[in-house]
Amino acid sequence: MPFADRLNNVETSAIRELFKLLGKPGIISFAGGFPDSAMFDVDGIREAVNAALTEEAGGALQYGATEGYNPLREQLAAFMTAKGNQGVAPDNLIVTTGSQQALDLLGKTLVSPGDKVIVEGPTFLATIQCFRLYGAQLVTAPVDGQGVQTDRLEQLIVEHKPKFIYLIPTFGNPSGAMLSLERRKKVLELAVQHNVLVVEDDPYGDLYFGDAPPPSLLALSSQVPGSRERLVHCGSLSKVLSPGLRVGWMVGTADLLAKATMCKQFSDAHTSTFAQATAAQYLKAGRMPGTLAKVRAVYAERAATMGDALRRELGEAIEFVQPQGGLFVWARLTGAGGKLADGGELAKRAIDKGVAFVPGAPFYASQPDHTTLRLSFATVGLDKIEEGVGRLATAL
Amino acid sequence: MPFADRLNNVETSAIRELFKLLGKPGIISFAGGFPDSAMFDVDGIREAVNAALTEEAGGALQYGATEGYNPLREQLAAFMTAKGNQGVAPDNLIVTTGSQQALDLLGKTLVSPGDKVIVEGPTFLATIQCFRLYGAQLVTAPVDGQGVQTDRLEQLIVEHKPKFIYLIPTFGNPSGAMLSLERRKKVLELAVQHNVLVVEDDPYGDLYFGDAPPPSLLALSSQVPGSRERLVHCGSLSKVLSPGLRVGWMVGTADLLAKATMCKQFSDAHTSTFAQATAAQYLKAGRMPGTLAKVRAVYAERAATMGDALRRELGEAIEFVQPQGGLFVWARLTGAGGKLADGGELAKRAIDKGVAFVPGAPFYASQPDHTTLRLSFATVGLDKIEEGVGRLATAL
Repeated sequence: MPFADRLNNVETSAIRELFKLLGKPGIISFAGGFPDSAMFDVDGIREAVNAALTEEAGGALQYGATEGYNPLREQLAAFMTAKGNQGVAPDNLIVTTGSQQALDLLGKTLVSPGDKVIVEGPTFLATIQCFRLYGAQLVTAPVDGQGVQTDRLEQLIVEHKPKFIYLIPTFGNPSGAMLSLERRKKVLELAVQHNVLVVEDDPYGDLYFGDAPPPSLLALSSQVPGSRERLVHCGSLSKVLSPGLRVGWMVGTADLLAKATMCKQFSDAHTSTFAQATAAQYLKAGRMPGTLAKVRAVYAERAATMGDALRRELGEAIEFVQPQGGLFVWARLTGAGGKLADGGELAKRAIDKGVAFVPGAPFYASQPDHTTLRLSFATVGLDKIEEGVGRLATAL
Repeated sequence: MPFADRLNNVETSAIRELFKLLGKPGIISFAGGFPDSAMFDVDGIREAVNAALTEEAGGALQYGATEGYNPLREQLAAFMTAKGNQGVAPDNLIVTTGSQQALDLLGKTLVSPGDKVIVEGPTFLATIQCFRLYGAQLVTAPVDGQGVQTDRLEQLIVEHKPKFIYLIPTFGNPSGAMLSLERRKKVLELAVQHNVLVVEDDPYGDLYFGDAPPPSLLALSSQVPGSRERLVHCGSLSKVLSPGLRVGWMVGTADLLAKATMCKQFSDAHTSTFAQATAAQYLKAGRMPGTLAKVRAVYAERAATMGDALRRELGEAIEFVQPQGGLFVWARLTGAGGKLADGGELAKRAIDKGVAFVPGAPFYASQPDHTTLRLSFATVGLDKIEEGVGRLATAL
């Protein structure tokens, strides 16, 4: 069967191949990119869905507005405002089927074949493929422990005149990095100076371990005149409540949201009102702060345990910035002491020793750093983290 | 903001503009394209979601496979088999976020800009726009009371060599027509003879009023060697259980499903597992036959009432085939007795008289028939149907 030309721009993920090996008995997996199912507030969600079916069965089960279910848009606007994002009204956001769909709608709405898009190196794997399906040519801006390097970003903007810039400024997947306050302001200034759209993807910002991270680009945009009109902010309940609901949202200008809504109408008509009404009831019930406090505490302890174990067991053979939030340790193999310095090769050996992680190279749209790896601490208990890192040391 | 070129291929729907007028107090609306909320089996869905959260909370709330939640794929395969579609295994289908997403994935997977796609005239409005967003050039095959005219279809296949043919063979939106058994076989033969893919969209096939319709193209494909490999079948729970779940599915060949799954990964990762697990529990509980019997009986009575009222009140000024299933009466204004023969003009006058319907012209990808209109009887009680048709006669 002849498929569409756009499929030539994407490939089956190397990571998917790796995931097929994860069924091996006894394996300890740091490979996931998902929250721990044991953290889900099942009772709270059960109460929420039952309230939705009692109070608003028609709305929860019928077709709904493509922009989103209004009670949920109201709750999400309040949730955003409570986090310091001033001036987010229900009309300023649309609900998406997970934040993955926000990326898809941005591609569909904005990208013509050949358009340039700047992404971080490394960045979220499904972003790379999503934008490429719409014909985007991706340009990679380097990331360090403080997030994207804004001086290099500015050069790339001037050189490539991108359609937009896609960033995960806070505890990004896979880098785990937190963009500094200074660089956040610089990004907004660049958006205005060069009249370029910035997309802030923020699924992890609520998962901080100590102090809260710097304000989001959206929150800071009030301090940089003209930047709000050049900013899109994508949020998600997937990492903090439940990925299974597939509830994300996108804040943007009225004209962009109107076009994205038109595209969404032909993508899936609307996001499940059943899930939206449940999420709205959950937020309305006021359980989110307690849920967030719980997941932050658990992930913080796991992150600390993994960091300590990596430093102790792998020593100079590995380099990483201790994560201050999110789900991931992003590390680099140094080759010190003649040890292996290839993440892909280590991943294969690690599977043999009973531990899995994701090599870092596929997370680069171009110029992959093969020494990198991504380790998720989110779904593994403390004992197993110790044991898994021990196996990793053996594999190395 | 400069949007993607593909947006030039679509326009804001005339129907959306009309829908803004529906908020007028006291209006009787035949304009909807949705099932009656009063038909929803709220108790059954409540039991299903509670069972899902009790028995499989992890699966219902966590990320899931892009292909679909396996317990649901198993239930859907059994549901299809029970309807006479032999040889549909769970692996032969993927779950989509409503059948709208199946259309989107077909566009994304198959259509390169400039590719021809044959659709019925009239056809589902969101199909037209969905395929055009991927650059499809639509070719219109005419429909009569027996469905698509297969002799004309064959000429168009030869002339245009389409990427695929999109049909709603059973009680289609908006035509309500039922493709005859003879023509169904002919469509499958054409698929094989001309080596062209046929997409059967079947959201309404279960909503028959008297005898069951002829077997689906999928069911008949076993009688036409080679046709199964050139057939895609899209199903949906939206019209029979709840649109709010956004649960549809697509049956197709392994290679097509693999590519569509890859595309879906970057569209929304997967369909809500919360909704999928609920749907799976609902089907498992065995409530669907009872639900179907109930909605069939209610819609049958409403369809009969509307047909009788239209014949009585509008007489020779209107022509239509009495629907044998689905949600719609598709009619043509004859102009008899010097009466109005323009559906768009009548829609405006009708709003003034307190009744709404959708003019038929926008449902044509090309060469619209302006005398046509679509009337839905699904969401209106018997008294209001009588009253609404009376108002329509006054408007005419």
